[in-house]
Amino acid sequence: MSDVYENVMELAKRRGFIWPTSECYGAVAGFIDYGPLGAMLKRRVENAWREFYVIQEGYYEIECPTIGQEAVFVASGHVKGFSDKMLQCPHCNEYLRADHIAEGNGVPNAGTMSCEALAACIAPFSCPACEKPLGKVEVFPFNLMFQTTIGPGSQRKGYLRPETAQGMFTDFARLLRFYRDKLPFGAVQIGKSYRNEISPRQGMIRLREFTQAEAEIFVHPDEKNRHPFFSRYAEYTMPFLGIPQQQKGEPAVTMSMQQAVEQGLVANQYVAYYLALTHQMLVRIGVRPDRLRFRQHLPDERAHYACDCWDAEIRSDRFGWVETVGIADRTNYDLNAHAFHSGTPFTVFVQYPEARKEQRRRIVPNMGVLGKQYRNKAKAIFAALEQAQPGPDGVDLEVDGEKIHIPADLYEVRDETVEVRGVDVTPHVIEPSYGIDRMIYAILEQAYDEEMVEGEVRKVLRLSPLVAPIQVAVFPLMTRDGLDTVAREIAGEIQKIGFLAEYDDSGAIGRRYRRQDEVGTPYAVTVDYDTLKDRTVTLRDRDSMAQVRVPVADIPEMIRDLIQGRLTFARLQA
Amino acid sequence: MSDVYENVMELAKRRGFIWPTSECYGAVAGFIDYGPLGAMLKRRVENAWREFYVIQEGYYEIECPTIGQEAVFVASGHVKGFSDKMLQCPHCNEYLRADHIAEGNGVPNAGTMSCEALAACIAPFSCPACEKPLGKVEVFPFNLMFQTTIGPGSQRKGYLRPETAQGMFTDFARLLRFYRDKLPFGAVQIGKSYRNEISPRQGMIRLREFTQAEAEIFVHPDEKNRHPFFSRYAEYTMPFLGIPQQQKGEPAVTMSMQQAVEQGLVANQYVAYYLALTHQMLVRIGVRPDRLRFRQHLPDERAHYACDCWDAEIRSDRFGWVETVGIADRTNYDLNAHAFHSGTPFTVFVQYPEARKEQRRRIVPNMGVLGKQYRNKAKAIFAALEQAQPGPDGVDLEVDGEKIHIPADLYEVRDETVEVRGVDVTPHVIEPSYGIDRMIYAILEQAYDEEMVEGEVRKVLRLSPLVAPIQVAVFPLMTRDGLDTVAREIAGEIQKIGFLAEYDDSGAIGRRYRRQDEVGTPYAVTVDYDTLKDRTVTLRDRDSMAQVRVPVADIPEMIRDLIQGRLTFARLQA
Repeated sequence: MSDVYENVMELAKRRGFIWPTSECYGAVAGFIDYGPLGAMLKRRVENAWREFYVIQEGYYEIECPTIGQEAVFVASGHVKGFSDKMLQCPHCNEYLRADHIAEGNGVPNAGTMSCEALAACIAPFSCPACEKPLGKVEVFPFNLMFQTTIGPGSQRKGYLRPETAQGMFTDFARLLRFYRDKLPFGAVQIGKSYRNEISPRQGMIRLREFTQAEAEIFVHPDEKNRHPFFSRYAEYTMPFLGIPQQQKGEPAVTMSMQQAVEQGLVANQYVAYYLALTHQMLVRIGVRPDRLRFRQHLPDERAHYACDCWDAEIRSDRFGWVETVGIADRTNYDLNAHAFHSGTPFTVFVQYPEARKEQRRRIVPNMGVLGKQYRNKAKAIFAALEQAQPGPDGVDLEVDGEKIHIPADLYEVRDETVEVRGVDVTPHVIEPSYGIDRMIYAILEQAYDEEMVEGEVRKVLRLSPLVAPIQVAVFPLMTRDGLDTVAREIAGEIQKIGFLAEYDDSGAIGRRYRRQDEVGTPYAVTVDYDTLKDRTVTLRDRDSMAQVRVPVADIPEMIRDLIQGRLTFARLQA
Repeated sequence: MSDVYENVMELAKRRGFIWPTSECYGAVAGFIDYGPLGAMLKRRVENAWREFYVIQEGYYEIECPTIGQEAVFVASGHVKGFSDKMLQCPHCNEYLRADHIAEGNGVPNAGTMSCEALAACIAPFSCPACEKPLGKVEVFPFNLMFQTTIGPGSQRKGYLRPETAQGMFTDFARLLRFYRDKLPFGAVQIGKSYRNEISPRQGMIRLREFTQAEAEIFVHPDEKNRHPFFSRYAEYTMPFLGIPQQQKGEPAVTMSMQQAVEQGLVANQYVAYYLALTHQMLVRIGVRPDRLRFRQHLPDERAHYACDCWDAEIRSDRFGWVETVGIADRTNYDLNAHAFHSGTPFTVFVQYPEARKEQRRRIVPNMGVLGKQYRNKAKAIFAALEQAQPGPDGVDLEVDGEKIHIPADLYEVRDETVEVRGVDVTPHVIEPSYGIDRMIYAILEQAYDEEMVEGEVRKVLRLSPLVAPIQVAVFPLMTRDGLDTVAREIAGEIQKIGFLAEYDDSGAIGRRYRRQDEVGTPYAVTVDYDTLKDRTVTLRDRDSMAQVRVPVADIPEMIRDLIQGRLTFARLQA
């Protein structure tokens, strides 16, 4: 195989997985179309994701618009901080990412450098577009959000969301009600997000419009080491490329989630739980474990809001280690930011197991005297007194910008015991965030295989049966003597139980098998003349090309069990 | 019931169906969030749609970006023509739709009037926002596409797509290859579309960001009356409000699809087929037939590209007849437009059953003489001659802007018989286009019911079991003596076969039933002390509140059959 990327993208284009968008007008970088088989594959990957987050974890999906009003992204920090450092080549006028040029020339940690530092460091390098030396150029931030206007007359700025997460945060109060005011709870969203990349050149890996699947799990900050179902993954073992390993230049260490939490490598049980779940899911949809690693963000690359962050990275033949999933403990950063900017509370009232008695010092004003003395200001003074810290000779207040001294004989200080039933808590957020398009690219690249069969190259997509777009092909050996009718009936029976069967009667049977191999169809059923006699058909396995003879009546359930992993083809052969 | 709209939206908000978007910053008109139950309902409606278009019809789904480059929408006509007629109130500065003001004041056909005519007609009316008389105001078109910029430096204009359709058109050549170069074929898309409405005031009915499900079916123009499966719906009967009925002010006429096509009321079998399919689907997901009608567009409201167009309109208590689905014969308009603007062919080569002999007149130049006489122009002249119509005394050509006369003795005219194997055909497009959000609103409004039960109001959403978000609730009578364990096991068994079961053990059993009634859960299973003895449970029907006693072991399959319509609750009671 020459270059896997070229081969798999050629196949993806030719067979209807991935197409350039509006190709007839010249495709625009950063956009792709999912063709018929690609869209089906994508839907199956999304549904596999739902199996974990919606069915297993019980987190409900919500759906927010992709256009958001400016206030949301001011609060989230995206208006100010969501930018890449850019320059324009003085020779060819191409816009370029400064950190990519630096990295391409071997500068380490270019992603964390300032504009000034980048400008200084890239001056000796050449423009990757026109290859002339860049020299002294200005490096400046470019905001990556697509901007638009909502309504006529430029009434309101709007942005295409850069992540689905914010919708879950702004809906926090409603979600809390939905979950009957109890922590922990979670919400998930699968949908489009947008980043107006400066000059994307990596096909499906760097898209301007892409699909994210994100979960936001809201947890009591004191309960992050008490995931209710941690035992499910406590013994799950996988390799970690933590901060210590990276700093010492050591390889990843393999250990259980329990160990990783106990050693303090992973911040808490919640983060560890979703690391393990992510590993399990990626392997289940077809990522090879030897091409999968979990890398912890170094302190200087970690987002300011996160206290721990890990990337699931998948090794690509073309692109190296590709960040595909991010799992972060975002602390209370987002909820605090929205509380501050919106002026509404983003807290949960957490009741104590039993009410606590607490000592409170309270200032009780002498209403009569104060009222007479201050008249219409009295109400504001009463309110200010309640919050004040009294000194030995009275209290200094500021009321409506005016400084007022209240002598100690105009109030009484009482130490009281009050009953406190609970406390308002701002939950922490654990966020697993998946790049669906990158998962699909990884699956395609790793599934692609070529082998010599009877002197010819067999191209085969070894997709997991769980995500293969066409789940079974049904062929009549000939389109006569009723073989085609029987084949159509079988295809119909399989469709009835919800699996996609493709009937195909065109061309030699060998060519039909190859057509299905190439798009990853895991099983094929062939109807021949024996079928008419004994009601059996040939069932063929894509990967081994092995065939077994089975009764027609068993086919639908057999296909279902094979696809859902309850049956292996090897067992059928035994 | 006071106002169904108010009641159903209150419930939708409170129980997590529909929420205002980013409410904490002040919701923006034209955007909604689907909460946990709303998103689930929406996904079930989309999947019901797929049952028809993807499974039954066999049209594959594709997925194109929501941002499109300008060239696409220049070709489609949206840059020039996709606008509403707007004015700004001179008193309160509010932007308003001119046609809505005219309609609101009883002017008929305001939607088809020119800007000038609208300005003249609305002068005497008052501003609906500030109620002052409008007087002489300017009415001008406002383009409804959201605009943005792709890449830095304002390099490229981009638009958020106003319909998903264009992606299927620009992918035409690739789709044709996918379907092995044969007509008819179809592609479908479910996804977000955007219209920057001027001042949307109708909740879920007029959204700026909404979900469309569209099918584009490509048909040989001569085959529009030969739908291969027309017999499926030929006898399907439904009411038509055609052009004749509307012009004569008559009520809808009920007839079969066969009759509608034969009488020329519906343009062809393809349009009729998708009218019937749409009727069947809408009824299946819960639209009452007596609130559903199909209205044909009048010649002056029909889009310029369509030769026949029907709207499925659903009657809303609040909004009257709401256009929810459009079914149009778009002819070859779109493919021709893209062929013209992109300079690439959008045709199918249709082979004749056998090659035809055709007479062709060909001009054969006298190469020697012409070549000598015209030298470097000769090649262009040869090419022009091939296309030319010769007169009695020669041919007048235009070559590179220059007029050249070629006398008759410099060429020979030959009448030849050529073998023609087929013809390039531009397919016609039949487009059923569904507004998913409007379907969901209709379902919610029609499902909402209140009744008096034991002296209390029971609020119930009578959703079709096919689309109800929670499909079954499972309650233990008490959370002790193992009743809760059994209930959780039953819920788990139901989940395993792919249905959403909600376990709930909080509060009195009556209150738990009401909670589920309100969100439309069609069935509830209650585990009690008898369950421990005889392994039976109570199965309750939401609508009738009737209960039957059934074995635990039968529950999963029974639930599946009830939801998929293979079993009725009445039969269980018999």
